[in-house]
Amino acid sequence: MSSRAPFALEIQAFEAGSPPPHALSIDLGDRSYPIHIGQLDWLGCLAEAQLGGRLAVVISNPVVAPLYSSRLISALRTRFAAVELHVAPDGEVAKEWSSLQAILGKLADLGADRDVVLFALGGGVIGDLTGFAAAIYMRGVCFVQVPTTLLAQVDSSVGGKTGINLPQGKNLVGAFHQPQAVWADLDVLGTLPAREYSAGLAEVIKYGPVADPAFFAWLERNMDALMARDHTALMTAVRRACEIKAAVVAADEREGGVRAILNFGHTFGHALEAGLGYGALLHGEAVALGMLMATELSVRALGLDSQLLQRLKSLLERAQLPVRAPYLDPERFLQLMRGDKKAAAGSIRYVLIPVLGQACLQVAPDALALEAIASHSASVTK
Amino acid sequence: MSSRAPFALEIQAFEAGSPPPHALSIDLGDRSYPIHIGQLDWLGCLAEAQLGGRLAVVISNPVVAPLYSSRLISALRTRFAAVELHVAPDGEVAKEWSSLQAILGKLADLGADRDVVLFALGGGVIGDLTGFAAAIYMRGVCFVQVPTTLLAQVDSSVGGKTGINLPQGKNLVGAFHQPQAVWADLDVLGTLPAREYSAGLAEVIKYGPVADPAFFAWLERNMDALMARDHTALMTAVRRACEIKAAVVAADEREGGVRAILNFGHTFGHALEAGLGYGALLHGEAVALGMLMATELSVRALGLDSQLLQRLKSLLERAQLPVRAPYLDPERFLQLMRGDKKAAAGSIRYVLIPVLGQACLQVAPDALALEAIASHSASVTK
Repeated sequence: MSSRAPFALEIQAFEAGSPPPHALSIDLGDRSYPIHIGQLDWLGCLAEAQLGGRLAVVISNPVVAPLYSSRLISALRTRFAAVELHVAPDGEVAKEWSSLQAILGKLADLGADRDVVLFALGGGVIGDLTGFAAAIYMRGVCFVQVPTTLLAQVDSSVGGKTGINLPQGKNLVGAFHQPQAVWADLDVLGTLPAREYSAGLAEVIKYGPVADPAFFAWLERNMDALMARDHTALMTAVRRACEIKAAVVAADEREGGVRAILNFGHTFGHALEAGLGYGALLHGEAVALGMLMATELSVRALGLDSQLLQRLKSLLERAQLPVRAPYLDPERFLQLMRGDKKAAAGSIRYVLIPVLGQACLQVAPDALALEAIASHSASVTK
Repeated sequence: MSSRAPFALEIQAFEAGSPPPHALSIDLGDRSYPIHIGQLDWLGCLAEAQLGGRLAVVISNPVVAPLYSSRLISALRTRFAAVELHVAPDGEVAKEWSSLQAILGKLADLGADRDVVLFALGGGVIGDLTGFAAAIYMRGVCFVQVPTTLLAQVDSSVGGKTGINLPQGKNLVGAFHQPQAVWADLDVLGTLPAREYSAGLAEVIKYGPVADPAFFAWLERNMDALMARDHTALMTAVRRACEIKAAVVAADEREGGVRAILNFGHTFGHALEAGLGYGALLHGEAVALGMLMATELSVRALGLDSQLLQRLKSLLERAQLPVRAPYLDPERFLQLMRGDKKAAAGSIRYVLIPVLGQACLQVAPDALALEAIASHSASVTK
């Protein structure tokens, strides 16, 4: 088994309850951008971000648009000569060629120039789709992420990964294209369905095991407040998740190294999603199960203290996330993990945690991986 | 009329007949790459470029593939475990969604990973299409330009502009994505039809007026040799064109400033192409006519010595390029130029030459532009 030193990552110390900064910053040189959290007044953000011009196009979906697009459009009208709304389909099907072509065709029909600014108002799907359209319209125009799900606020809206799916696999086509800004309004999370909210919490919890023991302990103390969608607790959680993601992305924009730690739980999780059929589990639910399996494997392969496994399981349960995966044939499970595009040439490299708060990329024997899967899956007869 | 200082550009002095360097280099920091000219032995290039791996995919068209793909594939077989050929449609229709989707679908079907390398074997269309596919497959994989037309060798293969067309306009969707290398084999130009060869010469000639009086004079002395496709003359011409383009691209990768000089003749030329219907003129032919009009406008608006106009016209004639445009309604001509995506918000900015060897971006009165157009167009009755 090849062994690797854990990734080294510099993140400022975790501080709960402190007044949040007005905006975090993703430090990427001339592509740096701010993340605004908890701003109710879009207009204020707009003024600060100094965005404006001839044309803004808001891309949203049929669920989010009726709730929040008019508020965003009103604010944008004070800064743009024209503001248009484009409604893409809801759900993962929006990440297809037809949706992308519809956006690009609309931009061309509007006579959009290189100074157009796109606003992605929605969850991860809308962010990925809008960001990719922005990446390739006239070889790249500006866009702003306005994430309306917890998952998007703490994960997908930050970091510049954009793209669509092919029939052969998810996110096979895309670009790294950083937004001009991220505006995460915590109040819009009030309308998020409970299951989606919990799925978002999975990606919040993820940052603890791989990067931040203090944050993990804070999550254990504050999970009840988070489940009640308490604004102060949410502010701390979203801010800390974004701080860690920002540090990771700044260190590794294009996923050559440390950015892999963000995939904790994702190798197992992607296989579950694909094997059970997309839609059976939400992405965050699959990641929750994947984190349990990766932690189990860390105990068995790297001697991680098994107490962490119990702490993680308890935390996921309190977040109303699944802790036992539906049955999937073991050989199929391994095959799907080998096919995962993050797996290099046949061998499966897992993101494992030798100790709480540190992660490394590691090959492990299939036998141990199968034990880890079985420990957190339903038996065939169930 | 707003006036601008000419662009300043540092290019090494022109030197004809000197032994060519093994490879030029496009200096873009960590995205720098070599341009190999006149290499007959692909294998040698391959070894030097240190390209190799599990899978290479050659993208070509039905005209070029039968002539040169087997030679390229043989060479690549010594460096890649597998080499696949994909034949896209011939001509501008290949720059459509369907061709792009076909390439990306094939890559996914082949299980291509991030280490796949694409090879664009063809002219500008194949280069733009392949480069864009490489830009967005798995958020970016490597590609190599193997341009087989003069136009592609001296212009489109260098600089990282990639993309496809929309029904609303050319190149509306794309990316800046630099190749790993450009391999320009002068011998393959032997099979290029005369009209396409001449069209390529238009883009070679272009570099003289905007950047290099000595090269312009050399072209006047050597046009007969170039028309005979003399290897030594071609080597000098292609090398010098690439040197100038390399200096321009290195100074301005994403077209914010000096890169505009490469569009000399293109504002008029694009309008001619669109107004006459794509296909009526080859791109290089439209650029030749556009250069005459831009030079005429430089004489009328900036007081350029009118002798240059005659020199340019004579050079284009010797290159068997058109020097009188088909008739196009003047108002329609202006309208098309205003719609050109390089025109900022309504006003048309022309690339003009105040003196031979220097270019600037300049607004000019419509009346003068119409005079310039009329001077080099057929009258309505013709």
